[in-house]
Order: sequence, then C-alpha cells, then structure tokens
Amino acid sequence: MLLGKQIMVSELNPKPIVLKIGGSAITFKEKPLTPNLRVMKRIAKEIAKAKVSRLLIVHGGGSFGHPIAREYAINEGFKDQTQNLGFCWTHNAMVTLNSLFVNMLIQHCIPAVGVAPSSCILTKHGRIHIFHDKAITKFFEASFVPVLYGDAVMDLAKGFSILSGDQLVSNLALRFEARRIIMGVDVDGLYTADPKEETGANLIPELTLEELKELEKSLRKSQTVDVTGGMLGKVRELIPVVEKGISVSIVNATKPNRIYNALKNKKALGTYIQKG
Amino acid sequence: MLLGKQIMVSELNPKPIVLKIGGSAITFKEKPLTPNLRVMKRIAKEIAKAKVSRLLIVHGGGSFGHPIAREYAINEGFKDQTQNLGFCWTHNAMVTLNSLFVNMLIQHCIPAVGVAPSSCILTKHGRIHIFHDKAITKFFEASFVPVLYGDAVMDLAKGFSILSGDQLVSNLALRFEARRIIMGVDVDGLYTADPKEETGANLIPELTLEELKELEKSLRKSQTVDVTGGMLGKVRELIPVVEKGISVSIVNATKPNRIYNALKNKKALGTYIQKG
Repeated sequence: MLLGKQIMVSELNPKPIVLKIGGSAITFKEKPLTPNLRVMKRIAKEIAKAKVSRLLIVHGGGSFGHPIAREYAINEGFKDQTQNLGFCWTHNAMVTLNSLFVNMLIQHCIPAVGVAPSSCILTKHGRIHIFHDKAITKFFEASFVPVLYGDAVMDLAKGFSILSGDQLVSNLALRFEARRIIMGVDVDGLYTADPKEETGANLIPELTLEELKELEKSLRKSQTVDVTGGMLGKVRELIPVVEKGISVSIVNATKPNRIYNALKNKKALGTYIQKG
Repeated sequence: MLLGKQIMVSELNPKPIVLKIGGSAITFKEKPLTPNLRVMKRIAKEIAKAKVSRLLIVHGGGSFGHPIAREYAINEGFKDQTQNLGFCWTHNAMVTLNSLFVNMLIQHCIPAVGVAPSSCILTKHGRIHIFHDKAITKFFEASFVPVLYGDAVMDLAKGFSILSGDQLVSNLALRFEARRIIMGVDVDGLYTADPKEETGANLIPELTLEELKELEKSLRKSQTVDVTGGMLGKVRELIPVVEKGISVSIVNATKPNRIYNALKNKKALGTYIQKG
C-alpha cells in the first residue's frame, strides 16, 4: 500500500524538466525584433506531443533582447539616465517575444503562463539575489507550464542588470529540484571548436562533470576567446547543477524532433552531460 | 540645513500618483483583441507632457481580458481542467495589451516598465493576499514608471481568480501612500444614473466620503442593478482609500486633455471625491 501511494505521489508530482529554448532558435538573429514563427510552431507541436508533466520553460532573447541591451549597456549597470529607456525597451521587447511564444504554446493546448522575471526577481552584481517564486510554485501545483525568459531586471548593487536565460535555467533547476535540463540551441550540441567558424569542429556526444570542469579550466587559463562559440559560458552556468546530479542535454532546437526526443529521454544527436 | 534636506528628499521622493486607464478607453470594447492605438497614443502624449514624477499606472482589460475571462468563468475559481487554457488565454491577452501600451509610453519617452501582477501577487477569495512589491519599489527608486494591469492570478482559496485593475489601484495607493488617484474611464465621471442608458443622467461633480457611502448603502439596500452603469462597484473599491485621505478624480480618458488636466491637478469636467 505504501509503495502504491509513493508511486502515485511521484506520478502526480514528478520532478520538473527545465527546458531552455535559445533566442537564436525562435527569432531571426540578424533581423531585429523578428520572431521565427515557423520554428516556434514546430517546437510547440513537439512539446505538446511529448506530453511531459511538470515542465518549466525558459527562452532567450535573440533579436528581441540582445541588440537593445547591448546598445544601452544594460548589463554594465546604471551609469546615467539615458540608459533608462534602453532598460524599458529591452524588457518590453522580451515581454512581446514571450507573449508570441506563449500564444503559440497555448494554441497547441499547452497551459502556458508567461512569468516576468523582472516582476519577481532582483539580482545583486548580476546574480539572482531575491526570487519570489510563490506564484511559480502555485502554477506548478495547478498543472500550468510557467514560461520565463532572459530579462532586464533591477540589481541591488549596480542599479539594473541583464539576467540571462541560462542563469535562470540553472537557478530554477536547483530551486525546483529538476529531474533534467534540456538546452535547445541553434547548433547540434557542444563542439571542440566553433562549428560556425571551423569545419574541423567535432561534436562532443558525452561529457562527465570532471571533463566539463577540465574543459572550462583549460579555456579559462588560456585567456583566449571561447573556441566553442560561446557555448562554454552557457555550460559553465550549469556546472553547479550537474554537481547536484541533474543531467543536461544540449540539442539543436532548429532541427525537427530533437526537442521532442530530448523530452522523451530518447537518445539523439546532441551533447549529454552527466555527473559521472 | 535640516529643512533644506527635508525639502530635497520630499522633492526626490514625492508620494506617487496612481493613474488607472480603463480597458474600454484603450481597446475597442466591441471588437475582441483590438487595441485603440489612437487613444493610447494621445494618452501617452498627455502623460509625457504632464511630466509627473513618481507615477504608477494600472490599465484594464477591455476587449483583451474580459471576453475570454467571462467565457471560462475564471473569476469563479477552478472547477475543472477545461478552464486552464482559458486562464492562460486571459493572462496572455493582458500581457499582449500591456506590451502594446508600454511600447506606446516608451515611444513618448516615458520610462515605462510592464509589471505582471500574476508573477508577484496571489489572491485569497479574490482579494490580494500576497504581494511581492520589492521590484516595484526598486523601479520607483530608479525613476521608472511601473505599468500593471488587471490579470488572471493564482488564488490560495479558489485556485485562480481575476484581480481587477480597480482592486489593484486601491491596493497600490494604500501600499505606496499615493498622493492622488486618477481613474480614467469612458464616460465623464460618476452619474446619478447610467449616462449610456438614460438621457436624464446627471454628472456628480463632487462627492464627499460620507455622500459616497450613502450612495453605496442605498444601492446595496435596493438590491437593484447598479444605476450608475457599473461605476459604483469601481468606486466602492476606493472607499478605504478615500478614508485614508487620498483623493480620487474620475475623468474621461477618451476625451482630449482630461487625463493631462487631472495629472496637473487642474479642475476640469469629472467627479472629484474627497474625504470631506
């Protein structure tokens, strides 16, 4: 009887999957403020088909968030009042992208609810410091799918900052004890070099925590640019998560069925990071 | 010296004005999901021209929020899973309207930041129970203009509920010790009867708290429909605010310069409610 009850409870309340959808997948990176509705729609279909219970989604900014945030140096914190409108533009562009993506998810019968990070999170020196997560907890309990995003947020040390979707993924996974993290990006996974720049770049299919740390250390020592095309900075955010035993799949969200397979925990092209 | 410093502080941190913009002003009420961009633009211009320091804006749902919320009976709380998508549609429609209005405000150089009520507020039996207002406080300190809205929110007693923009106005005014409240609606103020239904309806230019309470009591006793066209329900929400000495102006947001004059505290057509 006890076993039966335990199974039931775990089925009702399994640990969540945290799914990141990169901004470069759901927007046209070279065209400011232009959503890629075709990819958004396919991803929505795959999420609906996978029928995962307890899902938390985070999306990036792509051509909605990054160009304006960069122009006004929002990530460097408050320097003068001229940045304030840039902060506003950045946040509102992200709200717009969120409403488009959430709309697509609801159209595919996913009970998605946009959650505005800047309304409930404050950073300090760019790191999450206060996170009022009561609403997200309640959304979860009622079977909703919270959809957060990289955002311009208030910062207790430097006025304001950019909270990246990647930091959010890591924080949410630890906070809600995720069973897995899926990072949907615009390449096939983690490479030995930037696949967009070098033809000899090789996909790394599997990585242990130790291997990941070694890679991170050697890159940090060499003081060069990130040869993996900025991917390591992303993965670095995930080291504390993998340390807690949460596995990470990095897959290509721009290619059909990669997100679906990752959600169903089926092996497919991508990089799999596990503690060891 | 002390006096000088006190004045400086009060100039830097005057009490805020809470400005409500009715959904029926910034949307076409009869056309689902259709914003009235012309009125939005004029209101944005008037707010920019008034140059008010410390402003808090709340807008209603109009044809974005109300039809879907009504169809799925969101305000009655959770009854079955079929309502969940209705909750999602309602919230996302409000996010969309918010991003349109905030975009218009930023275009007019107002440092507006959308704040999602459902991300930081939980109700209980439909009344605000938990309100994480730290982000709003920080936005204020940095001279931003937070823009909230009536929203579908999680409710600790009945699952979910509708948090009206009017309840939000009242709560924010008390919470941030507002100096004044301005209610922008789609009629000239509070009438003795519904001006949209009866030609003999007279505008009430001024009302004391006692007169307001008398009116509310007589209507409640007669158990009839609200003869003022739903306006009294709105004003009823404001009774505790007026009791605290905060004055309320009800003006027509669909007519030029009414919002501007109210922001500048100039007398113009409308209803003025004061403690007495």
